[in-house]
Amino acid sequence: MNERDALRALAADLPHAGDDAAVVDDTVITTDMLHERTDFPPGTSRYTAGWRAVGASLSDVAAMGAAATAAVVAVYADADFDEADLDRFVAGAVDVCDAVDAAYVGGDLDTHAEFTTASTAIGTLTDAGPVTRSGAAPGDALCVTGEWGRSAAALRLFDRGRDDAAADADAIGTVDASNGAVERANELFRFTPRVADGLALAPHATAMMDSSDGLARSLHQLGEASEVGFELDRDTLPVHPAVEAVTDDPAERFELAAHFGEDFELVCTVPESAVDRVASDCPGTLVRVGSAVAAEDGITVDGDPLPDRGYTHGTE
Amino acid sequence: MNERDALRALAADLPHAGDDAAVVDDTVITTDMLHERTDFPPGTSRYTAGWRAVGASLSDVAAMGAAATAAVVAVYADADFDEADLDRFVAGAVDVCDAVDAAYVGGDLDTHAEFTTASTAIGTLTDAGPVTRSGAAPGDALCVTGEWGRSAAALRLFDRGRDDAAADADAIGTVDASNGAVERANELFRFTPRVADGLALAPHATAMMDSSDGLARSLHQLGEASEVGFELDRDTLPVHPAVEAVTDDPAERFELAAHFGEDFELVCTVPESAVDRVASDCPGTLVRVGSAVAAEDGITVDGDPLPDRGYTHGTE
Repeated sequence: MNERDALRALAADLPHAGDDAAVVDDTVITTDMLHERTDFPPGTSRYTAGWRAVGASLSDVAAMGAAATAAVVAVYADADFDEADLDRFVAGAVDVCDAVDAAYVGGDLDTHAEFTTASTAIGTLTDAGPVTRSGAAPGDALCVTGEWGRSAAALRLFDRGRDDAAADADAIGTVDASNGAVERANELFRFTPRVADGLALAPHATAMMDSSDGLARSLHQLGEASEVGFELDRDTLPVHPAVEAVTDDPAERFELAAHFGEDFELVCTVPESAVDRVASDCPGTLVRVGSAVAAEDGITVDGDPLPDRGYTHGTE
Repeated sequence: MNERDALRALAADLPHAGDDAAVVDDTVITTDMLHERTDFPPGTSRYTAGWRAVGASLSDVAAMGAAATAAVVAVYADADFDEADLDRFVAGAVDVCDAVDAAYVGGDLDTHAEFTTASTAIGTLTDAGPVTRSGAAPGDALCVTGEWGRSAAALRLFDRGRDDAAADADAIGTVDASNGAVERANELFRFTPRVADGLALAPHATAMMDSSDGLARSLHQLGEASEVGFELDRDTLPVHPAVEAVTDDPAERFELAAHFGEDFELVCTVPESAVDRVASDCPGTLVRVGSAVAAEDGITVDGDPLPDRGYTHGTE
């Protein structure tokens, strides 16, 4: 049973489930599990892990257009995980909450061989209500926050850090946290959840989600929920400078920016008439990258089909 | 690093942490991890596991005197955990939410060798505000909900079910869910979180917590937080009939009722003058079992010291 089928089953027959977060009255709630094998590559610091574990849930709150209120996190770690590790992990969790004006309010810890986290965040909806995935209409502008490929570039740098370490005979199999590539990778891994942008978008956006599965897959998911297609204009997609530093190949850059995923940016649709206003309301960057079109026109990039593939948790 | 130290570290320097649930404005939020080795003995059905995983968090909401709003649960299971297992697990989660008028709003699933859950519940405070652990005063009546020893009796019945199965040469190492002892154990394991009683107690109780670590340890924790002692009157403690069915020995019955834990009942203090009224307001049973006394008088049962020991997660 793969993860997507399982999520469908967990959500089956539940009135509030199925979007980035569940809605209960004016509260949104979301839970996410991350684990070492797929989400915390060797070289990820405890601080970065705490930031990222909690940030993933705060990003889901942002995707609903809600204000982030609070987060908790349950941590599974092996017996070597000591108090200093925990302090660093909690510091990361606290700091990502601070970055979006939410409160980190505690958690639970248990022993497990594989380092794993389960974070939950709650948020409060504004008068604009929740922004779901299902409201996009043909003609709406397709917009994204931030710059893309950040996490893909981080993974390349984690790999490079391991190679550098392996080149030193005394350091085979270990990763030095003071290694420059690893340090940069950790910085890239600590994304800011787009809560402030989500709040600015909430009164205007017709559909929204976060990009945890990558831009391509997000467009297919938004398209399915809203019964529309999308035209993506490749040159307008903001690619993170770190991607340019890890590869010269334009096709590979697009692959990392559009398919890799885990960037936790927002993907949304906005009526044509509101684009300029909402872009100036967003404290971060909001860029138009295409348009919603009729469902029968499919999901395309510069006129070619954009395949529904990306990073799948647990298989890569 | 043991669990209690770790929780202390997770809670360190966090303004809202340290009680059964964290308080953020008028919302309470709590997260709990349960795992197969310590919390789901062989014979526990998937339905019971879903009920109990989510019920543990709802019980923490109850202990704050809040109305339960919603719950989510992240599940880690091995590759054999199929869609039918997930359906049963979710059915248990949905039913325990229904039992306390909360909404089960979804979750997350991932693969892990040991079956493990991380549940989060949120609740809404009434005008009475949160009931913490720190407000008990000498002279207050000590009260408990429900009947005690239920989970201890269930564990004995799970063991008995295994013994019965082992007596059948064809069934060694397996547990038949249709086995009477196992079926009864599952029923006992599906407790009702005391949300309704917690709401009735909220305007009156001076301190409250749930009994996940057992009555004895709960009294020590309440006593430490409130800077009081307690006199427990042993004969007044309501013992669950299932305890009487698993042992004839009165000392062992008290051990199971007062030390074993995992009963998820409420332990609280109420001003003497309010006891009768609040007992009649509670939809379940609320029984007076002693009194808060001066801290220097310690925690006693019928005049003898009541040791601070119980079931410790992860070590038994």
